[in-house]
Amino acid sequence: MKLIRKPLATAFLFLGVFFGLGFIPSAQNTTLDPLPSWNEGASKKAITDFVARVTKDGGSDFVPVDQRIATFDNDGTLWVEQPIYTQFVFLLDRVKSLAPQHPEWKTTQPFAAALSGDVKALAASGEVGLVKLFMATHAGMSTEEFPSIAENWLATARHPRFNRPFTECVYQPMLELLAYLRANGFKTYIVSGGGVDFMRVFSERVYGVPPEQVIGSSLKTKFEIRDGKPIITRLAEVDSIDDGPGKPTNIDKYLGRRPIASFGNSDGDLPMLEWTAGGPGPRFMLLVHHTDANREYAYDRKSPVGTLNKAWDEAVAKGWTVVDMKHDWKQIFPN
Amino acid sequence: MKLIRKPLATAFLFLGVFFGLGFIPSAQNTTLDPLPSWNEGASKKAITDFVARVTKDGGSDFVPVDQRIATFDNDGTLWVEQPIYTQFVFLLDRVKSLAPQHPEWKTTQPFAAALSGDVKALAASGEVGLVKLFMATHAGMSTEEFPSIAENWLATARHPRFNRPFTECVYQPMLELLAYLRANGFKTYIVSGGGVDFMRVFSERVYGVPPEQVIGSSLKTKFEIRDGKPIITRLAEVDSIDDGPGKPTNIDKYLGRRPIASFGNSDGDLPMLEWTAGGPGPRFMLLVHHTDANREYAYDRKSPVGTLNKAWDEAVAKGWTVVDMKHDWKQIFPN
Repeated sequence: MKLIRKPLATAFLFLGVFFGLGFIPSAQNTTLDPLPSWNEGASKKAITDFVARVTKDGGSDFVPVDQRIATFDNDGTLWVEQPIYTQFVFLLDRVKSLAPQHPEWKTTQPFAAALSGDVKALAASGEVGLVKLFMATHAGMSTEEFPSIAENWLATARHPRFNRPFTECVYQPMLELLAYLRANGFKTYIVSGGGVDFMRVFSERVYGVPPEQVIGSSLKTKFEIRDGKPIITRLAEVDSIDDGPGKPTNIDKYLGRRPIASFGNSDGDLPMLEWTAGGPGPRFMLLVHHTDANREYAYDRKSPVGTLNKAWDEAVAKGWTVVDMKHDWKQIFPN
Repeated sequence: MKLIRKPLATAFLFLGVFFGLGFIPSAQNTTLDPLPSWNEGASKKAITDFVARVTKDGGSDFVPVDQRIATFDNDGTLWVEQPIYTQFVFLLDRVKSLAPQHPEWKTTQPFAAALSGDVKALAASGEVGLVKLFMATHAGMSTEEFPSIAENWLATARHPRFNRPFTECVYQPMLELLAYLRANGFKTYIVSGGGVDFMRVFSERVYGVPPEQVIGSSLKTKFEIRDGKPIITRLAEVDSIDDGPGKPTNIDKYLGRRPIASFGNSDGDLPMLEWTAGGPGPRFMLLVHHTDANREYAYDRKSPVGTLNKAWDEAVAKGWTVVDMKHDWKQIFPN
């Protein structure tokens, strides 16, 4: 379509943008590339082919807009998860800032280890230790207090290697992919093992994903009227771990719909991708493989953070898209 | 605005409708009544005044579109809940249709009581009995099997008094209210004690509320790969009771936002309305008071189904809107 020759098409393009409806001629028909940070190749082609198929009105693979649900893991899929999950850095910083109110932490594990940065002792405290740290730093406050704590931290903390805010250690190609899908009528969701309230603080600003489209791990909460004021308090009790099989069950619980496209990077995302793949009609499953030690990190089967092992094998066996970060991505982070 | 004199305005109205954006001149400016089944009076005026205030660009009470969240109870607020909750009728019918596979039910309570319609014995089995019946009829199947069971039942079952499908025992004034709020940029949610999967079967068709905007009581589920196929099974274990304090905590968990408007009809909705009222800026809380024994039902403080007692007192004390069904509603059900 040559827009210059078609004033009517131009008018419709304008209206489409104006009404925010993504009523924009699809990438196939214009010279505008919706995924400029993706190198040409099989991964990019698989994405644009899928979108073209499901949006082609009257085509055999057409999917109505209300069923265009896409779910994205966060850590390692939308932002950096190495050398350790961002929320764990937040947790350690939070232990430090709360320590003056807890003199006993100096001599109690796992707090002492967290305070002195003793990684070995921290690891030795295991999952039980981690849960203790999590509850001490994330529970016991109102649901309205937590976001400002997380926001303040995100505003000042820096990634140790890239020396930029964690919210800028997001992948430019994935930001483009999120926007591209939304422009094509998709509703984009985050479905991550991270704490739901932590992610909701920045999801809209950074990813364009509103809080009600973020699913994550959660604590139980309690509603009460305190001094005449309704308050919801975060309890020191796990409600849901949104990882592994918890991802598809939470998707089913929160949405009551099965996604037609899912994006992950590790074995924790495998059940979500399997669940997505198991539905009828066109399906799209993608894994980000971290292969770029120079620009980001290279890790897969043996990495304790973001293990990509079984999911990789299944992706290869089933022909899912595996992004080779080093070769598929022109640029890693936003400018 | 006189549309006939303004071809441009007509064009924009057309485009607004065409693009499904609710880009329609607001009710204040035209002779079109968005709430034709509401009699003129304090309730109707409170609704339209609130909507005018929060949508007035540049006004002191303006609320951005993404924060216009409205939550609705279902039973007794959007559809009839007397003489007993619709889902309970479904449950009893389901016990009957499953009975041939369970000969032992003839002599086991609460199943025998359910089969013979022995209300007294049913009541005597209490909450424990109810949970047993619920699990026997709602659990143990895949999440994909349940909707068709519920759908088939809804297609044939009739309300005992009104002799019409339960999905037509919905309140016309509330359907108009849902549509009116959406036309003004609100995102409408159902937040009900009813089973989330039961409501999701008809919420979009009947209320225009998509499944992902329905919050309800839920069972725990389990994800597994069975014969190479991913499957989610409904377990006989309660996940969440979305009633009373469960409403605000679920709203917080699912949305991460506080509604600015809430609609209910019973004490089970009070915490949701209190939570809504407790936020900053303009707020709207409404209770439907069933006062119309002729056209529907009249009940409040002493009704075991849909008790309206504490919530009524609080509504009066705080100046919330209490709809007097008999006087405020011109019409109860859709034609």
